[in-house]
Amino acid sequence: MTAIENAHDVTSAMRGLRQARQYRQDPVPDDVLAELLEVARWTGSSRNTQPWHFVVVRDREQLRRLSELRPPIGWVADAPLGIAIVLNGGSTASEAYDEGRVTERLLLAAHLLGLGGGIAWYGDSDQQAEAKRILGIPAERTARSVVVLGYPTTTRDPRPNPVAGGRRPLTEIVSYDRFDAPTP
Amino acid sequence: MTAIENAHDVTSAMRGLRQARQYRQDPVPDDVLAELLEVARWTGSSRNTQPWHFVVVRDREQLRRLSELRPPIGWVADAPLGIAIVLNGGSTASEAYDEGRVTERLLLAAHLLGLGGGIAWYGDSDQQAEAKRILGIPAERTARSVVVLGYPTTTRDPRPNPVAGGRRPLTEIVSYDRFDAPTP
Repeated sequence: MTAIENAHDVTSAMRGLRQARQYRQDPVPDDVLAELLEVARWTGSSRNTQPWHFVVVRDREQLRRLSELRPPIGWVADAPLGIAIVLNGGSTASEAYDEGRVTERLLLAAHLLGLGGGIAWYGDSDQQAEAKRILGIPAERTARSVVVLGYPTTTRDPRPNPVAGGRRPLTEIVSYDRFDAPTP
Repeated sequence: MTAIENAHDVTSAMRGLRQARQYRQDPVPDDVLAELLEVARWTGSSRNTQPWHFVVVRDREQLRRLSELRPPIGWVADAPLGIAIVLNGGSTASEAYDEGRVTERLLLAAHLLGLGGGIAWYGDSDQQAEAKRILGIPAERTARSVVVLGYPTTTRDPRPNPVAGGRRPLTEIVSYDRFDAPTP
């Protein structure tokens, strides 16, 4: 018994999910934003510590300032919405893992709801410090990324050096019972 | 336009997802495992580096050995399947983030397909080293966790000191345009 009747359609949508970095000007409606925030809120985390805080950024000037942190995230300036993730500032591995979990849920839920999203990383520690100043985040917290959302016009990568798509085949990335076992 | 007709049912299933650590003895069918591995394979990662390898563990003795790494993951011994995540051994933050992303997709897809899953962390660096020995993973790789899956009998936490559920309210974890902005 599956939890959702069309589970295979959903896993297929998961596999087809690509980042979108160019959007229509339409704002993300409040009810859609509320649904996304509930998805974020209920995400699992290490020992349910919920080590996060979310800064919903819709102010165009704030988005423009974030977009100027480094050229590869210039596309953030034209987005209607960003959800900046702020971590408490604990263990790097544990918090980055939880940040990845909540980001993935946001991107998947947004995709299912007809939105597109992309992840913008602020950059090195100086750029992260500048992002914290822009967003009023205390220096002792960790802030690395903002999940950027909107109604997509394309999933083409607008950056001058787009990353190649595709994925390695399963035969290269899966082994059975032991990492060093011969492929069956 | 949403990508999936019943998108709200799916986001609702996301919100309702809880870890399951006790399972029926039934194996996870090969076609379901194949679907999960495809979901993992297509997960997005930092600059599409796909910094992962997956060790599918169905051998009971291997699962038992992993379960003995530390008492809080004793429940792994009775699971039919684990998917151990192996990272290349690059940047901690970036790889832990990608590990969280792929783990979240696996847990969500498994849930939608009627399975339940839990995350077992090996523990400190000595315990991680022992996990690598058990699974035949080269020492220079990173291995922190295994995603454990099966048909759940309960989502009750079987551990002696279960973590409290629930989540903080949105008013405590969301702010608008600036972290330090007053709640509207």
